Amino acid sequence: MARTTAGRFFEDFHVGETLVHAVPRTVTTGDAALYVALTGARNVIHCADSFARDCGLERAPIDDVLAFHVMFGKSVTDISLNAVANLGYAEGRFLAPIYPGDTLSSQSEVIGLKQNSNGRTGTVWVRTRGFRDDECVLEFVRWVMVQKRDAASPPPDAVVPELKSALSVNDLVVTDSLRAPADPDNLAGGHWRFEDYEIGERIDHVDGMTLEETEHRLATRLYQNTARVHFNAHLAREGRFGKCLVYGGHVLSLARALSWNGLETVLRIAGINGGTHANPCFAGDTIYAWSEVLDAQPLPGSPDLGALRLRLVATKDQPCDTFPLKLENGRYRPEVLLDFDYWAILPRKAGDGA
Amino acid sequence: MARTTAGRFFEDFHVGETLVHAVPRTVTTGDAALYVALTGARNVIHCADSFARDCGLERAPIDDVLAFHVMFGKSVTDISLNAVANLGYAEGRFLAPIYPGDTLSSQSEVIGLKQNSNGRTGTVWVRTRGFRDDECVLEFVRWVMVQKRDAASPPPDAVVPELKSALSVNDLVVTDSLRAPADPDNLAGGHWRFEDYEIGERIDHVDGMTLEETEHRLATRLYQNTARVHFNAHLAREGRFGKCLVYGGHVLSLARALSWNGLETVLRIAGINGGTHANPCFAGDTIYAWSEVLDAQPLPGSPDLGALRLRLVATKDQPCDTFPLKLENGRYRPEVLLDFDYWAILPRKAGDGA
Amino acid sequence: MARTTAGRFFEDFHVGETLVHAVPRTVTTGDAALYVALTGARNVIHCADSFARDCGLERAPIDDVLAFHVMFGKSVTDISLNAVANLGYAEGRFLAPIYPGDTLSSQSEVIGLKQNSNGRTGTVWVRTRGFRDDECVLEFVRWVMVQKRDAASPPPDAVVPELKSALSVNDLVVTDSLRAPADPDNLAGGHWRFEDYEIGERIDHVDGMTLEETEHRLATRLYQNTARVHFNAHLAREGRFGKCLVYGGHVLSLARALSWNGLETVLRIAGINGGTHANPCFAGDTIYAWSEVLDAQPLPGSPDLGALRLRLVATKDQPCDTFPLKLENGRYRPEVLLDFDYWAILPRKAGDGA
Repeated sequence: MARTTAGRFFEDFHVGETLVHAVPRTVTTGDAALYVALTGARNVIHCADSFARDCGLERAPIDDVLAFHVMFGKSVTDISLNAVANLGYAEGRFLAPIYPGDTLSSQSEVIGLKQNSNGRTGTVWVRTRGFRDDECVLEFVRWVMVQKRDAASPPPDAVVPELKSALSVNDLVVTDSLRAPADPDNLAGGHWRFEDYEIGERIDHVDGMTLEETEHRLATRLYQNTARVHFNAHLAREGRFGKCLVYGGHVLSLARALSWNGLETVLRIAGINGGTHANPCFAGDTIYAWSEVLDAQPLPGSPDLGALRLRLVATKDQPCDTFPLKLENGRYRPEVLLDFDYWAILPRKAGDGA
Repeated sequence: MARTTAGRFFEDFHVGETLVHAVPRTVTTGDAALYVALTGARNVIHCADSFARDCGLERAPIDDVLAFHVMFGKSVTDISLNAVANLGYAEGRFLAPIYPGDTLSSQSEVIGLKQNSNGRTGTVWVRTRGFRDDECVLEFVRWVMVQKRDAASPPPDAVVPELKSALSVNDLVVTDSLRAPADPDNLAGGHWRFEDYEIGERIDHVDGMTLEETEHRLATRLYQNTARVHFNAHLAREGRFGKCLVYGGHVLSLARALSWNGLETVLRIAGINGGTHANPCFAGDTIYAWSEVLDAQPLPGSPDLGALRLRLVATKDQPCDTFPLKLENGRYRPEVLLDFDYWAILPRKAGDGA
Repeated sequence: MARTTAGRFFEDFHVGETLVHAVPRTVTTGDAALYVALTGARNVIHCADSFARDCGLERAPIDDVLAFHVMFGKSVTDISLNAVANLGYAEGRFLAPIYPGDTLSSQSEVIGLKQNSNGRTGTVWVRTRGFRDDECVLEFVRWVMVQKRDAASPPPDAVVPELKSALSVNDLVVTDSLRAPADPDNLAGGHWRFEDYEIGERIDHVDGMTLEETEHRLATRLYQNTARVHFNAHLAREGRFGKCLVYGGHVLSLARALSWNGLETVLRIAGINGGTHANPCFAGDTIYAWSEVLDAQPLPGSPDLGALRLRLVATKDQPCDTFPLKLENGRYRPEVLLDFDYWAILPRKAGDGA
């Protein structure tokens, strides 16, 4: 009798079922310190209790992206151990700040299934919800290409969920107590506020960060994400790339950390509209990033805060002063790793609100 | 006058003496986070305060193997800085869960000495006891081959301690409050309980984990184990292997973490019966693991818990679907790194106890 | 409009201005655990709450060198993003122990400016002060060579600050409550006390520690020091060395950790008299260290403590049994990485004080 699991295959998923993911996790200041060491993350609300209190929170919450990775990591064993590719994200919402000491768990509901025309793989859509005790604090939809156990097994009825191409600002949840910090000393590191950014503006984040094998593995294990493509070099040598793939979420972490230079005053990530891992990333790659302001909206009920819809693009071995994205044929340029679309919350200028 | 120590040689040990090891350590959630990042450890009782409370503990204790390494690490300066090899372990007992905030220290009593026939080395047996303040929370015997300072110095009277080939279930100490968790949602990650496992059963843990130079060094430094064979590549280039050796305990950590897949419900390690580091491990090796159920015993006084005696075998660059162990001549196969024999505590099926 | 900063150039500094550095940081036991894992630091007062209390402190403070790096790291964005070299340190004082949970910030006052004769660079002197809330807990002067934005811009009036070649023992601040621990069990790891050391004595710290790319990057990111020479291998390939430079502060951390072997009983670093990064360090280098006792002074008002002025020298790929330092021409030997001059506080022998 098989004690171990080799992961679920396409045939094992059924629309409407809910998978409760194992291994809840109490996140700690240890996780937060490691996240800083692994990524260089510097958004000050996550770094200093004093600043977080000045923003109306009880103390520094863990980085929103770290919280996302912890919730995501739990889902891998049930959803994507046999995934061929992470295809996309949608309808991600960060519903509450998460603090060291909170115990996090997650569940995923299967909301869509569609076999691919090759008969060997299918797409699985899941809505993953992350909880602090019984409170849902984060949710997102993702879809992955999963292998079939047996190409001959019959396809399920195709169910393709209708997903929003982007959240509207009304979909975002802002913690009631969150407010623009006074910050007369510019402790956030940048002077720019919500009104300073213009729709259509693009920002080259300038710096590059080279990543090594150990770094992405430490990060991915920290999230208890055990997808074997990241860890087993012995197996990978015979695989498609001949080496281990970097968890796409680590590229997101690095790009977001690099984006501090130009987006220093971002207080929180509020929503994920979409995301594409455009090309694989490997140890030794140097990550660069640029951002584009896609939209800017005041936040109803929070007169001193505004929301920017941002595209965050990560590249490898390619500085971003030319804002590289797609080829003429519409495909992503080979140096583009990530194209991520999200809502960020920033302080407004004093007196502009209310 | 020499301010520094080059470590103790065989002549420096005397049967009956107790060595109080330096540098007590307050373990923290920072250590626990790093342990997860370095190993991928996922046994849920160590991850989630809520689950630990459901098991009758006050909150998530640090991983038993991490506690072992911290206690072991302290002993290296006094015992094994000049060790040629770690030869074995016996009579290891985990006497209490250890929590973040506990301050740990350790002492070792020399319980045996025997010069080797070559006259240049000898075997030293020590019983190491780990303390939380004044409470002994962990103990184990290990024996190491240590170099003599001077081959001409006379051998001590040989004292070879009588050690149990294995602990009996009556030797194990189960924390009074520990109980089987309810876990209706399978948060541990596996459905198997004590009664599901059969003596003689072997489990291939499937996954492999490649380790890099930085990873074993971070782990070994975290335990403040300073054995120089792990850290000094400049010196190692002229040594027997031409490169740094991985601390055998890190192989144990990785194998134990891999064993989650098939042994998800293990609550605690209760005892160490024996252990052999069969072959050296180096950066770049991919660790695989398999387990064998050697014995299964109910736990007197804990009707909802049972103890499995398990063999945990780690290999390098060799999947474990064929359960590799020894050659026909009785020696370990060259791909086998570790053969570890321990007692684990698991929940019993509801209603089977009492 | 440029959202991002490329760092300040020589022309941007003005004597007398104070730069408030961004991103205050609440240090935690997570930072402390990582510091141990990255360096092997073992001075027991930073490891064990029990020992720290025996020294009159409330619990284990974070390592003094870690505190220095956190304060230093904050200043990099404003001071040395375009630095060609860190030229020196002076007048460093550690004014109070720093505990997990403290929120740290720093500011720098520009105290000197002098354009170099080549017209393309200049030297900037700053006095950096580190704060816990509003209390100054650390201060030091450093000077760096910074690139000019435009070689044609006129030089500022040269202002070269008068700095002490070394602090006197009267400049040192000893925390009132700090006292020599009882330590009958030698938990510090060494028997030597203040009176055991002799002026002029040199100590070879014996051990060597090889560092890898990931290790210095994790450390430097932990301090949120983003100087790009440490992180961007893609850019570095076209640079002077063809690879990333290791943050000189990480060499200091490793040398200080190695110095435990011979200086086990050091309780605190009290002052920095000077420091030179003599040669660049790269991944793969093996760090060795030796110390020289430059002075020994009783501490006024602390009868059970004494201060040693120590030179700490780090080398690469060169054991320190011959105490390598300078060539006959007075320049540093090529294998010397660091020459650091500091004051350390040690316990005196019982009964010698008062």
